[in-house]
Amino acid sequence: MTLTGHNFIGKTPSAKGTTTFHAINPATGEPLQPAFHEATPDEVDAAVQKAAAAFQVYRKKSGVEKALFLEAIADEMMALEDLGQRYCAESGLPEGRFQGERGRTVGQLRLFAQLLREGSWVNARIDPALPDRQPLPRPDIRSMERPLGPVGIFGASNFPLAFSVAGGDTVSALAAGCTVVAKAHPAHPGTCELVATTILAAAEKTGMPDGVFCMVHGTSTTVGMGIVQHPLIKAVGFTGSFRGGKALFDAAAQRPEPIPVYAEMGSTNPVFVLPGALRQNGGDIAKGLAASVTLGVGQFCTNPGLTIVEKSTEGSAFMDILSENITTATAGVMLTEGIHQAYERGIDSLAQQPGVRATAKGKKSGAVNRAEANLLTVDAAIFLTNKRLEEEVFGPSTLAIQTGGHDELMAVAQSLSGHLTATVFGTPDDLEQHRDLIDLLSQKAGRLIINGYPTGVEVCHAMVHGGPFPATTDSRSTSVGPAAITRFTRPVSYQNFPQNLLPDELKDNNPLNIWRIWDGERGK
Amino acid sequence: MTLTGHNFIGKTPSAKGTTTFHAINPATGEPLQPAFHEATPDEVDAAVQKAAAAFQVYRKKSGVEKALFLEAIADEMMALEDLGQRYCAESGLPEGRFQGERGRTVGQLRLFAQLLREGSWVNARIDPALPDRQPLPRPDIRSMERPLGPVGIFGASNFPLAFSVAGGDTVSALAAGCTVVAKAHPAHPGTCELVATTILAAAEKTGMPDGVFCMVHGTSTTVGMGIVQHPLIKAVGFTGSFRGGKALFDAAAQRPEPIPVYAEMGSTNPVFVLPGALRQNGGDIAKGLAASVTLGVGQFCTNPGLTIVEKSTEGSAFMDILSENITTATAGVMLTEGIHQAYERGIDSLAQQPGVRATAKGKKSGAVNRAEANLLTVDAAIFLTNKRLEEEVFGPSTLAIQTGGHDELMAVAQSLSGHLTATVFGTPDDLEQHRDLIDLLSQKAGRLIINGYPTGVEVCHAMVHGGPFPATTDSRSTSVGPAAITRFTRPVSYQNFPQNLLPDELKDNNPLNIWRIWDGERGK
Repeated sequence: MTLTGHNFIGKTPSAKGTTTFHAINPATGEPLQPAFHEATPDEVDAAVQKAAAAFQVYRKKSGVEKALFLEAIADEMMALEDLGQRYCAESGLPEGRFQGERGRTVGQLRLFAQLLREGSWVNARIDPALPDRQPLPRPDIRSMERPLGPVGIFGASNFPLAFSVAGGDTVSALAAGCTVVAKAHPAHPGTCELVATTILAAAEKTGMPDGVFCMVHGTSTTVGMGIVQHPLIKAVGFTGSFRGGKALFDAAAQRPEPIPVYAEMGSTNPVFVLPGALRQNGGDIAKGLAASVTLGVGQFCTNPGLTIVEKSTEGSAFMDILSENITTATAGVMLTEGIHQAYERGIDSLAQQPGVRATAKGKKSGAVNRAEANLLTVDAAIFLTNKRLEEEVFGPSTLAIQTGGHDELMAVAQSLSGHLTATVFGTPDDLEQHRDLIDLLSQKAGRLIINGYPTGVEVCHAMVHGGPFPATTDSRSTSVGPAAITRFTRPVSYQNFPQNLLPDELKDNNPLNIWRIWDGERGK
Repeated sequence: MTLTGHNFIGKTPSAKGTTTFHAINPATGEPLQPAFHEATPDEVDAAVQKAAAAFQVYRKKSGVEKALFLEAIADEMMALEDLGQRYCAESGLPEGRFQGERGRTVGQLRLFAQLLREGSWVNARIDPALPDRQPLPRPDIRSMERPLGPVGIFGASNFPLAFSVAGGDTVSALAAGCTVVAKAHPAHPGTCELVATTILAAAEKTGMPDGVFCMVHGTSTTVGMGIVQHPLIKAVGFTGSFRGGKALFDAAAQRPEPIPVYAEMGSTNPVFVLPGALRQNGGDIAKGLAASVTLGVGQFCTNPGLTIVEKSTEGSAFMDILSENITTATAGVMLTEGIHQAYERGIDSLAQQPGVRATAKGKKSGAVNRAEANLLTVDAAIFLTNKRLEEEVFGPSTLAIQTGGHDELMAVAQSLSGHLTATVFGTPDDLEQHRDLIDLLSQKAGRLIINGYPTGVEVCHAMVHGGPFPATTDSRSTSVGPAAITRFTRPVSYQNFPQNLLPDELKDNNPLNIWRIWDGERGK
């Protein structure tokens, strides 16, 4: 497929702007063809207007119709031959990762399709009329979730498929019945265009309105802000940096009509290794941790950036093995030169903080844009006095925090702000003795992990990929898994409606055979 | 019971401040005893600190324990002999209204208790491990809703019980497992203190931690802002004016750690009377509408402030009967002199807008603080050019918007911003012919009503008392009914947890016998 470098106002390509940019192959530093056209303010407006017009049609599509659309996107994506090549060229990620991430993305589309076919996600509630109730009769009242409107979606650099143009945010918005204006990520605009074509083709094949999906390019913040500040946009999904997410959140809160922003901004994902586990299998944990730290060149939101371990003989042995495994890690290509530079600056800045020791460094590489792994160490007492040490350094590094005993361990846990994940390694006895720690961590993170690693975010019903601020701007939601759908809906009540005017989900005879809450009781 | 005029730092009365104020009997203008002490910044901080400490105990209470607490509040409230007298003296509302509102408040407490005893509200999800899955095994992942932390609750002037200290916001927060710092409403501080004592007594009797509930007084915005800006407060519930709610929302969004604000800020609740209904029973609808407009001296968030009716012979007949019924309405005592003055100013300002005609005025009263009913009229063409005409004038008034045909009716509907409710009166034929109108209104309001009046908000599972901005700051929620509970929770995932460390809600054997989603399937 030949890339055009255009924006997509629905299915209409558009290249009105004169500012262009190229994707860069991060492994070589070479620009890739073609030139991509930054969207002009007029193009952003046209995209949002078209998405708003399409919303009036798309919002009435049934669950089955939307499911067919999502499944068609999955099929189109699997059929697209050039996708892997472009993905690898733009991201520096290997072919195997492409295969895995495409599988995840397609699986995600199909899981949401399944959710829509089943249909109970709308949370239908029916309180039938009680005409004889004293002192006042009760009217018939029913409610269900309805879509918010056109939404703006900002993909992440680090998942060019699963968290980008047809990723978790887009699929949950489309499943909800919202139309989407996607901001293509400037690090992988070609992958974005290829994926956009699969969505547009699927929309065409399944009879979805033109404008159900639009995509605009931009390297500056103007294009993104143009989406967020557009009065017809009703919600925003974002995965990326704290700075980027917080800027969108602030802009959205300051609109004349504030709108929700679901920004997943990453975190340092503390990993606590408890004394019994250290003694029992500290070496294995250290090896696994090094692998988790360096997986995908450390470019995961759930990368374990903080490791909490006791100062002891076993703690030292653990640190030695962790160091060894960091030292032997090969340097990997980072997603962009900008991300690589930010990583190097972040490590330098961290190493210069008082009391922080550079403990181990991975193998160097002569090639461009390669990141070495890093292990740094600090005493818990110092960590507790310097909030900067908790901040994310996006890349293959972890800061080991050495604690002097249970109280200090708890003080470190207490000092933490919000994270996507918190992990505890422990023997059964450890865990029993550290119920207080686990309980405390449940107030700090969206997902708690026992004896596992935080990298690897399963797409499933019970997944919470979210967490308290500053990990996200809305701890009440997840950006992964079917529960992500209700980020883009609101409940609507229907009082005293005749049957023929009710949505199928709320009709007496339950034509969709969904689970509902009838007078407080769940049933079909 | 003798009122103290103190703040409550948990169960400890506190009166450190030197600034005091009195409640005023709005029917007479006379001050009521005793003097109430404005909370100092230190007292606000002490209250929040105590609520935060209590949260660490209260969040672990079981559903049954929390249910007993809520039921005990209901019992205490029913047993309180002086409540009605103080309620009526402070609010100007009649004894019958007290009885009704107390019944509603107590019923609400019991309904939430029932929700907690049943237990399924936590939205438990279990995705069991798939150790043999290819290419990667799936870990065991489970999730459920957990409380956010201490929350700030701001009661409304117009429901001294049902939307105040032990009203919908407090009960849903307590049910969620959050502790509460309530800001007493300065218009009914005595009622607030009486209700506070019932909560404190119930907490004592049911073994809840001291600090599960705190209450502070204040007439200035300082006390309220002190709560919202306190770093330990994790969410805010508010019912009141747009100005007040929006100020809290802005303050919360600008915190270093932004927090959710659920502000229900009222609306003008458009009522569309369709042609067939006008012909069939326009007179009855007009009478009912006048009753809804003047009910409780128009002091409801769901007061029908906009009436959309065609220019026609039947439309004129409808307007005549509406005028007649507004003209014969007696002047009622408003909640406060400030509210009364705002109403008078609002009506004057509305009447002075170009093209707005003062059509009917209710009976005058020589006594203080009485509000006359008002009916104003404007042509749809003018309404469409002046956004101010949609703004709420809190009190017994409605603005009739006269339309020239279907297109103009739709243009008025299209022009509307967010409302709590939207109502349509129509015959079956009307409704069939106005599916486009009903569909459009479903995008503008939290609750749609067919052939009924918006006043009267049922406390039930399907109720949505909310709606798009500016009716609320968070359209994704309701402030009435059991679904209000998840405003104060966030989901937490537990990965690879041994059974003994899981909350009961997530254990394999389902000891609480709640509905759960197991591998995507609902069941017990």
